[in-house]
Amino acid sequence: MEFSPLLRELIQALRCLPGVGGKSATRMAFHLLERDREGGLKLAGQLKAAMEGIQHCQDCRTFTEEEKCGICANPRRLEAGQLCVVETPGDVMAIEQTGLFAGRYFVLMGHLSPLDGIGPAELDLDKLDVLLGREPWGELILATNPTVEGDATAHYVAQMARRHHIKVSRIAHGVPVGGELEFVDGTTLSHSFSGRQPLV
Amino acid sequence: MEFSPLLRELIQALRCLPGVGGKSATRMAFHLLERDREGGLKLAGQLKAAMEGIQHCQDCRTFTEEEKCGICANPRRLEAGQLCVVETPGDVMAIEQTGLFAGRYFVLMGHLSPLDGIGPAELDLDKLDVLLGREPWGELILATNPTVEGDATAHYVAQMARRHHIKVSRIAHGVPVGGELEFVDGTTLSHSFSGRQPLV
Repeated sequence: MEFSPLLRELIQALRCLPGVGGKSATRMAFHLLERDREGGLKLAGQLKAAMEGIQHCQDCRTFTEEEKCGICANPRRLEAGQLCVVETPGDVMAIEQTGLFAGRYFVLMGHLSPLDGIGPAELDLDKLDVLLGREPWGELILATNPTVEGDATAHYVAQMARRHHIKVSRIAHGVPVGGELEFVDGTTLSHSFSGRQPLV
Repeated sequence: MEFSPLLRELIQALRCLPGVGGKSATRMAFHLLERDREGGLKLAGQLKAAMEGIQHCQDCRTFTEEEKCGICANPRRLEAGQLCVVETPGDVMAIEQTGLFAGRYFVLMGHLSPLDGIGPAELDLDKLDVLLGREPWGELILATNPTVEGDATAHYVAQMARRHHIKVSRIAHGVPVGGELEFVDGTTLSHSFSGRQPLV
């Protein structure tokens, strides 16, 4: 015997979620059916609304259902004259939570990865080019991940910015606060030494 | 800045899934939006269909969108004259996968737990009583979990079956196959001893 068709298809559909295999999907389906049908229906509605309604911000490419996201629509974010380039909308959220950055963002939605067929066109870098020429930016901050692809992407974007004569900086890499030197990998530690700051 | 309202509500709705907190929900939402909008839409449809369509089987109470589930609708499952009482539809699936049982099931959808307000009425034990009286059962197999609540439930159901003069048995508890005696807890080991079988 197998589960009834509707239940089987629900379990199959739940497996599209990242990190959810057969066992978790079965557990989720039973949980919703036994204890939270209302939550399941609400999730169905929100999923449909989000998948159909959420697009990319015209200016920074982050996720939003409006033409422009909350940050791009706020004229005060332009006054800082700083543009921060990140890989994902989650990175925007992480930086916003520090409360230290008041400028605008450009979200690449990935990184350059020629082997996967992701080039400048896929990251809409022409849009970034337009944005770089349109506003009087004082600084471009590269906050892509410190991976091979992230570094390559940062390098590419830096060259674009230099053509527009914009000052470019890269976020610092080094020993994380609270970390122990002993357990930090060599590359991070060498970044930490080469990027050392004078004590004032 | 926060996520846009639609995205925020999607993340909140995803948290109704068991084992999914804020971080996982955010990751799931981004994954669907970035890489699998089709899967997200399909999940929305399946969720709605399942939450609205799946009910309990008239006879055995397992999940099904039909009046009777595949097992109860199959007349050959009645011929064995065996009824197995389990706690959840997942238990039915586990027993079916062994391929050793050809009888019918009754799914309690839980266990007796007076402190949580779950008594005989919540488990539809009157339905089980009707079922016990209606068919010529040769044996009732109690396969509730070997927990305090599962044992108490088994005891209660056994008394019901005895009123109908039906032979009652409980699945064996002991050392799991492939397990090591040294690491098995005392209660299981004592079950294993008291339930020992003569070697033929």
